[in-house]
Amino acid sequence: MPQGKPSVVPDDGLTTRQRRNRPLTMVHTGPGKGKSTAAFGMALRAWNQGWPVGVFQFVKSAKWRVGEERALRVLGESGKGGAVTWHKMGEGWSWVQRDLDSSEEAAREGWEQVKRDLAAETYRFYVLDEFAYPLHWGWVDTDEVIAVLGERPGTQHVVITGRNAPAALLEAADLVTEMTKVKHPMDAGQKGQRGIEW
Amino acid sequence: MPQGKPSVVPDDGLTTRQRRNRPLTMVHTGPGKGKSTAAFGMALRAWNQGWPVGVFQFVKSAKWRVGEERALRVLGESGKGGAVTWHKMGEGWSWVQRDLDSSEEAAREGWEQVKRDLAAETYRFYVLDEFAYPLHWGWVDTDEVIAVLGERPGTQHVVITGRNAPAALLEAADLVTEMTKVKHPMDAGQKGQRGIEW
Repeated sequence: MPQGKPSVVPDDGLTTRQRRNRPLTMVHTGPGKGKSTAAFGMALRAWNQGWPVGVFQFVKSAKWRVGEERALRVLGESGKGGAVTWHKMGEGWSWVQRDLDSSEEAAREGWEQVKRDLAAETYRFYVLDEFAYPLHWGWVDTDEVIAVLGERPGTQHVVITGRNAPAALLEAADLVTEMTKVKHPMDAGQKGQRGIEW
Repeated sequence: MPQGKPSVVPDDGLTTRQRRNRPLTMVHTGPGKGKSTAAFGMALRAWNQGWPVGVFQFVKSAKWRVGEERALRVLGESGKGGAVTWHKMGEGWSWVQRDLDSSEEAAREGWEQVKRDLAAETYRFYVLDEFAYPLHWGWVDTDEVIAVLGERPGTQHVVITGRNAPAALLEAADLVTEMTKVKHPMDAGQKGQRGIEW
């Protein structure tokens, strides 16, 4: 995207600088590929700005995103950009000291930590990977998420990925992109392959 | 994406392994955000596999993708994954020893180099960033691109990004994702901001 010019200048009493530095809530949803991949691509820009990046992976399998995780960890440890912290539900969140009974409980614990980090301004860029699922399933309350995001301090950007993001979340978000599947190799019998799917 | 099971097993005489390792042509198109970002996110997986990655940036401005470029260069230089080579049309392709008269000529030169690299199997993963534009404008012949990709040796994966990718390319591709703009902050007067747009 070029920097571009806004098509409308809002009557909100803010200066351009204030408007420019507004924290963004972004959602990548839809049935197509690239939702999470694009979120991790955005994290590269945040890293390049020197921003602390927090990834919360709301998926059952810890094996997902191995390539992205390793790349972002190497970047975080390079000292040439922001620090990267990677939290995985699939391996039990690192800050939880006991076994969680269910994925539902694990998802809720993840959200509680996101809330604490937002309040503490721990990160400047958050990837809530596949977080749309626990919202869709009602494990985490969408209205609460919207309220917490609406009141978060500072300039913390948040990108949420996953199919079936609730309509209320899309309504509240600043940027929504829907990834549409036009054609996928699995439809033609192609199996997933290394370097592409993982 | 999970590895998943193909919904159809094709009657093509190939073994599962042959089918698994087939080179993929992928296209990210549509008016929404995330087309290139998702392609660079995929490059993280290729890097993690130790594959040589070649990026060809078919855009006029060399300032685009600064975050992605820096991240991928740091990764490439880390020695912990594949090498990354980044070619920029906006700064004049590095292998061209003379000034090019126009963007059209520059785009054609870029494609000629991609052809040479495909023939030599220089990279295992190619990002042809914004290459849909010169195709759409007719600067580079889509039929030729399809033919060259169809005959490329080895297992070289290629992802092409950009709006308005020609229909024939989508037809020939293995994977097509369309990014749809549902909502964008610029519509509400939000200006582009650092760490987000660049």
